[in-house]
Amino acid sequence: MDSSELINIKSVFSEVKPDLLVMEELIRRQVKNFHTDLAIALDLLLSAGGKRIRPTIIILLGKCLNTDYDRLITLAASIELLHTATLVHDDLIDGSILRRGSPTLNSKWSAGATVLTGDFLFAAAAKLASETKSNEVMKLFSDTLSTIVNGEISQMFSPRCKPGIDEYYKRIYAKTASLFETSATATGIISEAGQDIIQSLSLFGREIGMAFQIADDILDFTGDESILGKPIGSDLRQGLITLPTELFFEANPDHVLVKKILTDGCLTDPSDISQLIEDIHHNSVIEKSYEMAESFINRGIRALTPLPDCREKEMLQSLALSQARRIQ
Amino acid sequence: MDSSELINIKSVFSEVKPDLLVMEELIRRQVKNFHTDLAIALDLLLSAGGKRIRPTIIILLGKCLNTDYDRLITLAASIELLHTATLVHDDLIDGSILRRGSPTLNSKWSAGATVLTGDFLFAAAAKLASETKSNEVMKLFSDTLSTIVNGEISQMFSPRCKPGIDEYYKRIYAKTASLFETSATATGIISEAGQDIIQSLSLFGREIGMAFQIADDILDFTGDESILGKPIGSDLRQGLITLPTELFFEANPDHVLVKKILTDGCLTDPSDISQLIEDIHHNSVIEKSYEMAESFINRGIRALTPLPDCREKEMLQSLALSQARRIQ
Repeated sequence: MDSSELINIKSVFSEVKPDLLVMEELIRRQVKNFHTDLAIALDLLLSAGGKRIRPTIIILLGKCLNTDYDRLITLAASIELLHTATLVHDDLIDGSILRRGSPTLNSKWSAGATVLTGDFLFAAAAKLASETKSNEVMKLFSDTLSTIVNGEISQMFSPRCKPGIDEYYKRIYAKTASLFETSATATGIISEAGQDIIQSLSLFGREIGMAFQIADDILDFTGDESILGKPIGSDLRQGLITLPTELFFEANPDHVLVKKILTDGCLTDPSDISQLIEDIHHNSVIEKSYEMAESFINRGIRALTPLPDCREKEMLQSLALSQARRIQ
Repeated sequence: MDSSELINIKSVFSEVKPDLLVMEELIRRQVKNFHTDLAIALDLLLSAGGKRIRPTIIILLGKCLNTDYDRLITLAASIELLHTATLVHDDLIDGSILRRGSPTLNSKWSAGATVLTGDFLFAAAAKLASETKSNEVMKLFSDTLSTIVNGEISQMFSPRCKPGIDEYYKRIYAKTASLFETSATATGIISEAGQDIIQSLSLFGREIGMAFQIADDILDFTGDESILGKPIGSDLRQGLITLPTELFFEANPDHVLVKKILTDGCLTDPSDISQLIEDIHHNSVIEKSYEMAESFINRGIRALTPLPDCREKEMLQSLALSQARRIQ
């Protein structure tokens, strides 16, 4: 598809904006009748922004498939809350102070209150999932939470600074693509779509999710620190090897710092680490990584072929294509 | 009922033992195919014992109501896992080193790994709840998790050393009785019992749950430290006022330490705190607290009247009556 034919990505976001506001209102209703500090926490989390990419995908797919609107918004809210709950616990565990430039909950509250707020958000997400009135969605929801958490535990207990492309793909599937996959699959389920359409949706979600995480991992080298809210190369600084680093290691086995890591494990000298981050940032592996993200996206877009022709399908194509080289 | 007519409580536990083993096996299956450390954590948690009172109630009620066995065990496993998940996070937040004399997960693992293990257990519990194939159960499950967590957050943000019997009852409903209520209600739902039976079950669960927590709160004064795994009076030491203390304050408004708390807030001198704990322990308010637990139990037992006559109903009566004055 010629990119000039694409729907402008800004118009995609402005078109789903009213639906996202309906979703946010539903999310805010989940803390009514509970402790006021939960509403304060939720406000903080919602106002910190976020791309709302998962609910956007759900809304666009659902509209194309003529899904019942209330069920669709309920699903979108459930998935966004599940995602938010995992971020609350992640930031606490990592001791992150900022996310997307806004202070994290754990930077303001005690660890205990942060753990409990995350738990409450899990409960609220599960409640909304149950309100989609689909057992299949409920099972997918809990399976996905298991996958995400298991991925984090595996990462926590894995050796640092060890390359391995298969491990990398498994990790980003668990961390990100699994919830994108569930978002799309569950939309198919509540739309009462046929099994073939649901399978296509799963593939679409999974591939776009993989691309989304690869783009995040590239941004960790190329992004603006003030937008990221963390220093450049923070993955590598924590001993986490992502796609650009994997490709750099493959292409430059004789690079002195690569050799050092492969023989001795993580670099310890901060200037060595900064040098390696710099070398990766300015290497062709960044372009190669973009291209790999784009091939996931193209596979995802092709998976949409069996869907009915609809304007939302074109919007999803634009949305997907905008992900690989996004700047935040 | 004359206590000599009661089924021996030991025979109640030995009768449900095989069912509890089936349930434990199902629980252990939830970590298969996941990171091995999760299986290690689960083993640690299961082998630390616990009374399994919630699944015992579910199994006895379900057998009386001729519930499908697989569904019954699935529900029991889901509720026990939900309970376990909340304990994992509670112990972390409270910094508890022991529970029932066994080391807690947070005493052995990092805070991050403990948070994630709790999250994984929530996910596994939610998955099992979805496998009961009842949307109503799923909604109850998530509502109860919200209630429990909201109760903990409210407690965390409440002023210390403030008496208030209504607040106390609200707190123990959220902390304990809500999950007992859900255990019994959900058993009625999966048994496809009528609405009147389900309402009776809810009342039974709630009242027994209230009594169970009151008994726990009495044990905090009368129990054996080596069994409790914590010092006597630990609630009061943390500024938490439970039923015996409430009653002591009411009956002894002129007690010097009571006056001190009511005017100045929490006691600060450790010998004052120990003295007050000692005074409560040896006061008639302990007997009064037992009697209040027993009146909850009696209301709970009366609620079982509309159930079909069955041996399990008698076993539930024994079980309920054994709770008020239990010693661990």
